[in-house]
Amino acid sequence: MSGSPIPAGTAGTMPGIAIYPGQPGSVHVTELPRPQPRPNEAVVRVRRVGVCGTDRELIEAKLGAPPPGSRELVLGHEVLGMVEATGREVRAVKAGDLVVATVRRPDGCPACRTGQPDMCIQRAYTERGILGAHGYMVEQFTEREPFLVPVPASLEGVGVLVEPLSVVEKAIRHADLIQARLRSWAPTTALVLGAGPIGLLGTLLLRLRGVEVVTVARRPAPNPAAAVVEACGARYHSVRETPLADVAATLPNIDLILEATGVSALVADGMTLLGNNGVLVLLSVTGGESVAPVPLDAINREFVFGNKVMVGSVNAGLEDFAAGVEHLAEFERRWPGLTSQVITHRLRGFDEAERIADATDDGIKTVVEFAVD
Amino acid sequence: MSGSPIPAGTAGTMPGIAIYPGQPGSVHVTELPRPQPRPNEAVVRVRRVGVCGTDRELIEAKLGAPPPGSRELVLGHEVLGMVEATGREVRAVKAGDLVVATVRRPDGCPACRTGQPDMCIQRAYTERGILGAHGYMVEQFTEREPFLVPVPASLEGVGVLVEPLSVVEKAIRHADLIQARLRSWAPTTALVLGAGPIGLLGTLLLRLRGVEVVTVARRPAPNPAAAVVEACGARYHSVRETPLADVAATLPNIDLILEATGVSALVADGMTLLGNNGVLVLLSVTGGESVAPVPLDAINREFVFGNKVMVGSVNAGLEDFAAGVEHLAEFERRWPGLTSQVITHRLRGFDEAERIADATDDGIKTVVEFAVD
Repeated sequence: MSGSPIPAGTAGTMPGIAIYPGQPGSVHVTELPRPQPRPNEAVVRVRRVGVCGTDRELIEAKLGAPPPGSRELVLGHEVLGMVEATGREVRAVKAGDLVVATVRRPDGCPACRTGQPDMCIQRAYTERGILGAHGYMVEQFTEREPFLVPVPASLEGVGVLVEPLSVVEKAIRHADLIQARLRSWAPTTALVLGAGPIGLLGTLLLRLRGVEVVTVARRPAPNPAAAVVEACGARYHSVRETPLADVAATLPNIDLILEATGVSALVADGMTLLGNNGVLVLLSVTGGESVAPVPLDAINREFVFGNKVMVGSVNAGLEDFAAGVEHLAEFERRWPGLTSQVITHRLRGFDEAERIADATDDGIKTVVEFAVD
Repeated sequence: MSGSPIPAGTAGTMPGIAIYPGQPGSVHVTELPRPQPRPNEAVVRVRRVGVCGTDRELIEAKLGAPPPGSRELVLGHEVLGMVEATGREVRAVKAGDLVVATVRRPDGCPACRTGQPDMCIQRAYTERGILGAHGYMVEQFTEREPFLVPVPASLEGVGVLVEPLSVVEKAIRHADLIQARLRSWAPTTALVLGAGPIGLLGTLLLRLRGVEVVTVARRPAPNPAAAVVEACGARYHSVRETPLADVAATLPNIDLILEATGVSALVADGMTLLGNNGVLVLLSVTGGESVAPVPLDAINREFVFGNKVMVGSVNAGLEDFAAGVEHLAEFERRWPGLTSQVITHRLRGFDEAERIADATDDGIKTVVEFAVD
């Protein structure tokens, strides 16, 4: 693999996996012009791309928008790839580097202008693979240097998890930033609602800090998610077997709750179960317009007397991607091979494009493999 | 008035206004031993004491506990007084100083041990005039130096408002601390729910910062609260005349909501109306166990995508009392005489003790005058 000059033979077209936004079940393989890098861009050869709930919602036409001038949107926002070539102004990555790419691109709002597009206040951002910009389920893509984050070669197997981990990194970083108002903030207990990739990566991250973690989901153990939870020293409970309130009662004052299901009834439960000086981080959404009965008098009273916080968290900052890379390496040192158990299903890119919408009821994370050697 | 040595003639008993906690409508004048200061205490002659919703709940026996060994609880936690004498170890205040006293006394929890009893996690604190310690509706009280905050003589007329203002100071300070996570935090719009003393003092404090403020309450203007709101350049709306959603729609993205009613339906409205990167501060409670229908799917989604925060805030730190003193002086410079309009009713201490529970539907703040010259 050669260095900076753009390799010959990159012209022409290439395949990509796309949808027609607004048209449910429209996943198809399309042809795209092979990208031509600008001086401040790198060309990245895609290795693998993770599939998440947002991708399923895109395929169900619940959200999504194509780039201007296109009817199609290329899917994929959780990417691991290898830099093939770099424009002449690129310094931070070089050919042969493994990288992940961030998702959101700033608009001109005050948060974006100060380098925090994940805190965009105007919400006119674009997101690669989601809103107004093509994603990464292609052979190659180009990206500007600031949106590429290097990943060590040793993390080739799990680096595709950096993007979902970055979402958790931001959530916990913000809980810490918010609680910097407390001279005594040092969370010792956490409740994680949901044992999908976000819930599991949150569980691992909190266990790395020594927090006592209880992770709850619907499915009774044994199952692959419960195995990950227990292997890192957290406790797994199925709410089908034990009511959530009983599970929560096994913890003293709950310092932190990560809500990673998007189920609004659990949001209400989270508000009720949160401990004094606790933070409830909402980091998942699902569609719907449900209006649920909520014990608001009690929640208001306990939020006031207990100085409690509920905070929503979306996307991730560049620092969260960098922290995700660091922490993935720490996961590997602490629990060798465990993180890769989060990846339970693998599809062959392009050939199995139609299957990426399949729910994996018996698994956790589906990854689409591209450029498999 | 003499300096440090304790004046002669302070022995014997003195009157105080007390309740029997748990017994509704039990306000009465009692006799108490005249306090004897320890070396680290000052003796304070009470000037006036404000009455708030908590006092009414105490009188209705909805909360409150007497000091250990007593059946009675002396009321009053919003005090302005003058130091009469100081123990030999006292340095920060001297005889003749006007002072306010803080309310909460720490337990041994991590927050209290690090000087943040207002963030008490164990909630085994005592509060003078509320929980386990006598209040300030007496002729004289003693207090340790760290819990006394000097007030300039120029603020004699409004200094009794320092305690309720401190509650607002904490609320807004914490909103700022929480939003320090944003490089671009500079609130420009605020919605204040409630035009009682807390809502009005919040309105003044935000106007001092140049924030565009809309304050809503039930009563149509003109009324004394609306007059204060309008005089400081905020807008007043009665939700009897205009639905809250229509009022909120007159503001662009709402950066800050102060919920100062404790009405749980408004808590739900606050969650719905909050803007992107906004903070909803809950700082009022009322009793009750209402379960209200809440559009939780939409609230969860908007909290996540908009990185929104809801935070409860109770009591105040020492720094909030100090800030309250500073800001009262600024209010006086900016809007001479306006702050005193918050005090709409005055009672003569001891003589009119039975009237302190009277709701003042046509007014804002009732103050009990002691030691009136």
